[in-house]
Amino acid sequence: MRAYNFNAGPAAIPLPVLERAQKELVNFNNTGMSVMELSHRSKDYEEVHNRANSLLRELLGIPDNYEVLFLQGGASLQFTMIPMNFLKSGQTGHFITTGSWSEKALKEAKTFGETRILASSKEDNYTHIPTNYSLNDVENGAYLHITSNNTIFGTQWKEYPQSPIPLIADMSSDILCTEIDVEKFDLIYAGAQKNLGPSGVTVVIVKKEFLETAKEDVPTILKYSTHSKNNSLYNTPPTFAIYMLSLVLEWVKEQGGVKQIQKINEEKAGYIYSAIDESNGFYKGHAEKNSRSLMNITFTLQNEELTKKFLQEAKERQFIGLAGHRSVGGCRASTYNAVPKEACEALAKFMTEFKNQNS
Amino acid sequence: MRAYNFNAGPAAIPLPVLERAQKELVNFNNTGMSVMELSHRSKDYEEVHNRANSLLRELLGIPDNYEVLFLQGGASLQFTMIPMNFLKSGQTGHFITTGSWSEKALKEAKTFGETRILASSKEDNYTHIPTNYSLNDVENGAYLHITSNNTIFGTQWKEYPQSPIPLIADMSSDILCTEIDVEKFDLIYAGAQKNLGPSGVTVVIVKKEFLETAKEDVPTILKYSTHSKNNSLYNTPPTFAIYMLSLVLEWVKEQGGVKQIQKINEEKAGYIYSAIDESNGFYKGHAEKNSRSLMNITFTLQNEELTKKFLQEAKERQFIGLAGHRSVGGCRASTYNAVPKEACEALAKFMTEFKNQNS
Repeated sequence: MRAYNFNAGPAAIPLPVLERAQKELVNFNNTGMSVMELSHRSKDYEEVHNRANSLLRELLGIPDNYEVLFLQGGASLQFTMIPMNFLKSGQTGHFITTGSWSEKALKEAKTFGETRILASSKEDNYTHIPTNYSLNDVENGAYLHITSNNTIFGTQWKEYPQSPIPLIADMSSDILCTEIDVEKFDLIYAGAQKNLGPSGVTVVIVKKEFLETAKEDVPTILKYSTHSKNNSLYNTPPTFAIYMLSLVLEWVKEQGGVKQIQKINEEKAGYIYSAIDESNGFYKGHAEKNSRSLMNITFTLQNEELTKKFLQEAKERQFIGLAGHRSVGGCRASTYNAVPKEACEALAKFMTEFKNQNS
Repeated sequence: MRAYNFNAGPAAIPLPVLERAQKELVNFNNTGMSVMELSHRSKDYEEVHNRANSLLRELLGIPDNYEVLFLQGGASLQFTMIPMNFLKSGQTGHFITTGSWSEKALKEAKTFGETRILASSKEDNYTHIPTNYSLNDVENGAYLHITSNNTIFGTQWKEYPQSPIPLIADMSSDILCTEIDVEKFDLIYAGAQKNLGPSGVTVVIVKKEFLETAKEDVPTILKYSTHSKNNSLYNTPPTFAIYMLSLVLEWVKEQGGVKQIQKINEEKAGYIYSAIDESNGFYKGHAEKNSRSLMNITFTLQNEELTKKFLQEAKERQFIGLAGHRSVGGCRASTYNAVPKEACEALAKFMTEFKNQNS
């Protein structure tokens, strides 16, 4: 039986994608080799590589004046590469902090230059996306950094800031979850292991004009321009992870694209949020309603003992990954694109049953 | 039909490894999930992770006072991380340059501090491993960096320097090819895509005592200590690549370990070097005999036209990846651990046939 996979990342991958990868694993495209045995300079691999690039462009409506890069090191390496490339002396990196990941991005930027917290929901234990900030006095800002979705706290931006300075977003946990206007951003980055495929590849979407403003004195491999000039083939890319990314993107397209995926995600999250809201306080959502994430649904039960019982019974029914992050506790259901509607319906049903039996 | 895969990297992976990965791809260890869908904090994944670590320790005889790390970014990121962590102000990084990859390592180190070329075979177009160097005046050296095998030129160190300062080796293209004495080295690194598995994971073996001398003012993700303190789980590791690494290591063990693999590698390379040496000059080896690599066999034919014809006919017989690197030309057969003996025999036979028909 296939598990109901609510892992926070690495996370579910669409079953048809896994089945296709399985079928092709030993002999890709009649080459007599696995895709992971192909030279990254071969025609067969380059087709995979370029297909992943063009599918992402198509699905997100990425304009031609943006580069799409496939890097390694996850969002954590981006936390360092961004200030290394773009936080110039005499300028300030502005941050809106909405959880642990934005805090980490801020912490790394601090070691490279001036930073400022423009707004934060830290005092409220990150239950919401801040709205009480002004963008009037950021003129000398190098950039404004946000985290579009907060896996640990279960909040998500609904409307992005109209930033007068370059806007950078960590979209690791919600890229391709809803339609976005790429042109609002100068740089978007996302580790693949939530909505894009397996861990080991990081997608960067960067405006060419912004790229041209980057600092020069950066080590070769940590310069975005090194990768943009070489179609992400400066050094050996993580070829199998990029192949899996290409298959996941094909799958998103087959579902009807991001617009349709968004509709399904709203339904999926809807089942679980309804189970919370209709539980008469048996379950309590961590996030404020207008900041609720479509991707990570965080909630608590009345006490530790009940939480433990809930997680235990859930596990017995093959619901995987429902324990909240160790820094918050409680429960979390991650309902990324590849988590099927049936899994979310089944979880909502189980939550209601468990409530009825334990209240 | 399975191709005769002589790719320089990404390269051949043992067929039984691919078949096992295929079998387990959709449902790993009865979890109802693919290995790439597992949380990196789950028991199932941690077993894979720790198994890769302990198998590598066993196969290479790595002592307890060494850390084994699984990183991302390939050797190219190591070129930057090494001087960032270990090239201190007032000290010198010493290099013996034996090809393009050592030159790249040197180039990146230069941007962080003082460097010195202790020896080089550049003037001879890297046909051999230098022996005309002295290690008497390196007292203030931060480290001595070597590249144990040179994929492009087809040379390989047979005896490592007895270095009075920490010895660092890029073993990307020959790790596990022959038995080595790890205790001679302070740091060994290797991108996986030649002898260890798919691209996307980099193995680092580092002496704890050396690690403790590292600089402090290094970005978190680029500090070796960040990864050693967290068993390479500080951020999400490339879980599928590490899983494949664990399967390749199992396979090496089943073959009888590195000692037996070395014996097979000597036979394999022997077939092809014999075809060169017995060709009466029809094929000319690039490397000097005492520097010949067991992993990358480089040779030229008398002219461009004949080379083209050779590569074309080879391709028709499913010999893949025989064109020399674009910077050298000619031909190259990469005979990594996973390339079967039969493939090497078949290539040697073809080379002799081609010679007989064209001389």
